[in-house]
Amino acid sequence: MSEFRRDPLKDTWVITKNFRIRQPREFFVDREQVTITCCPFCPGQEAKTPPEVFAVRPKGMDANGPNWQVRVVPNKFPILRIEGELNPQHDGLHSCLQGIGAHEVIIETPDHHSSLAQLNLGETTAVMQAYRARLLDLRQDKRFRYLQIFKNHGVEAGAPLPHSHSQIMALPITPPLLRNELNACREHFLREQRCLICDLIAQEMADGRRVVLNDGQFLVVAPYASCFPFELWILPLLHNHDFAQQSDQQLAACASALQDALRRLYNLLEDPPYNFILHTAPPEWPRPGHPDFWTTLAQDYHWHIVLVPRLNHIAGFEWGSGFFINPQPPEDAARFLRDANPTLNF
Amino acid sequence: MSEFRRDPLKDTWVITKNFRIRQPREFFVDREQVTITCCPFCPGQEAKTPPEVFAVRPKGMDANGPNWQVRVVPNKFPILRIEGELNPQHDGLHSCLQGIGAHEVIIETPDHHSSLAQLNLGETTAVMQAYRARLLDLRQDKRFRYLQIFKNHGVEAGAPLPHSHSQIMALPITPPLLRNELNACREHFLREQRCLICDLIAQEMADGRRVVLNDGQFLVVAPYASCFPFELWILPLLHNHDFAQQSDQQLAACASALQDALRRLYNLLEDPPYNFILHTAPPEWPRPGHPDFWTTLAQDYHWHIVLVPRLNHIAGFEWGSGFFINPQPPEDAARFLRDANPTLNF
Repeated sequence: MSEFRRDPLKDTWVITKNFRIRQPREFFVDREQVTITCCPFCPGQEAKTPPEVFAVRPKGMDANGPNWQVRVVPNKFPILRIEGELNPQHDGLHSCLQGIGAHEVIIETPDHHSSLAQLNLGETTAVMQAYRARLLDLRQDKRFRYLQIFKNHGVEAGAPLPHSHSQIMALPITPPLLRNELNACREHFLREQRCLICDLIAQEMADGRRVVLNDGQFLVVAPYASCFPFELWILPLLHNHDFAQQSDQQLAACASALQDALRRLYNLLEDPPYNFILHTAPPEWPRPGHPDFWTTLAQDYHWHIVLVPRLNHIAGFEWGSGFFINPQPPEDAARFLRDANPTLNF
Repeated sequence: MSEFRRDPLKDTWVITKNFRIRQPREFFVDREQVTITCCPFCPGQEAKTPPEVFAVRPKGMDANGPNWQVRVVPNKFPILRIEGELNPQHDGLHSCLQGIGAHEVIIETPDHHSSLAQLNLGETTAVMQAYRARLLDLRQDKRFRYLQIFKNHGVEAGAPLPHSHSQIMALPITPPLLRNELNACREHFLREQRCLICDLIAQEMADGRRVVLNDGQFLVVAPYASCFPFELWILPLLHNHDFAQQSDQQLAACASALQDALRRLYNLLEDPPYNFILHTAPPEWPRPGHPDFWTTLAQDYHWHIVLVPRLNHIAGFEWGSGFFINPQPPEDAARFLRDANPTLNF
């Protein structure tokens, strides 16, 4: 069982895995290559994963058989487990919660060798539909304060398995970074009666120096205070707080903008390792029962995707200060990416 | 010139370097090895660095010549520059400050091949004395809100140059993580009339499961909510908020505890990459002119060192959520490190 442990100095939480004692050598994984003889995410290997919770496959085909396009399964080695109670405990200055939540894997393609950037628009849209389906299902569990969807691509970005996949974690605590963002958006709305992210979109479109793409439905922009070189935000022009409320047409437009961004990065930076993170409204915020609960949230938050190539290491200064040092102005990133080839030539 | 740029969504600041346009290939450094033909930190190469601002060398020897034990020089490629004004500017939702500050390198030893763990006690104490001297000097500049001392060891921890060194950055903004810590300490003191870190030390000593070393002057402990495997905090038992107020004897005791921790990590984890960060009171907090300013700070903060081996990558989940996932309970880390060899056998 894992647990959430609170740090009283940093006022944040760490998930501590606690399954078995691991020898020091086992923490050297990042200095060695991971080799897998038989990929559990490939068609025909469905029995190697827990039974699927969602799949896109032709009508009439059996669950947990081959012939799927996207497949969502519980993580075989989950960081958080669905069964049990949070059981909060404290001992002096220390407090913890049991590691309750969900941890699922979205297998994005049956093709072991295709990366997300190489899928066609229909295939990428199916991945977005899988995200939406899992958000709608998992938010029915009232223990979960947030559903975090993210993707790691490449060993340096935390993906030792090469078969293209993303992950969803259902969390019993609102993540600190999302809490900051929701608070900033709420404060801006209360002050200005406008959405902070709608205002950011308007300012970036008017300025233009950091814009990579504006296709009329999505803005792809290198953010003004980018933490990493070539960081990109993928922002829907249409105000909405909740990814799970998006129509198929809107998901296809999101897939198209994401693909464009991924292909530019692939072509410019030679298939860089990257992470992306979906930022969307939590199922319940600030608390159920608040009279203006859904109305306020719908007005003041605006879902989006943050995409970060992982080219540089996070060093002592960043780790110790909370500041990031970005060796590249985002205006330069946007210029290079505007000029990059957005088509599939790999 | 670099600049501090504020992110209105995350409510934090990023330092954006802005010296010249770098080609995308230049961001691939971490995928390649850095090779240096002639180390600028070695004796005899003093002219390759800016003139020194501090050195430990025998009396009567000339500055900027050889025969030094520790040498502090301005960074030749500083992220922040000492000359100029902050010149705050804003444009709609964006705001920035000029990258004013200081960025110095503490060259810890003349020996190109010795790591900090290999220095003797006197040599390590001289490094601590250099930290103290630079803190005392730089805090005279009232533009600086915080003086951040840190060390990167190994390429994976952000140190492309192999010659052992640490860094100091003088910052015009209090770093967000330190601000959180100062606030947590202050709130605890106002509530309990006791120092939070003194309380933590007492609890960890009574518990014992996470203690690696207690030599009567320093406690080395794997913190309850460790973010990384084998993370260690080096805590002085004597309450004091300010590293710069430490006597030579106290600095020697700190050097001894730090050496013990570094040698255990070296022997157990085969010279792992690591970062350490000195956490100490800012020169001015919360503001000069506050009547209880120094009294309160001296009561409620407690300097210490955070030491983190860098064995695993920070992936999308951590980056997107602000939560960390640690695959190792600190109780296991402490047990392995208690049993590890603390002597120099390398």
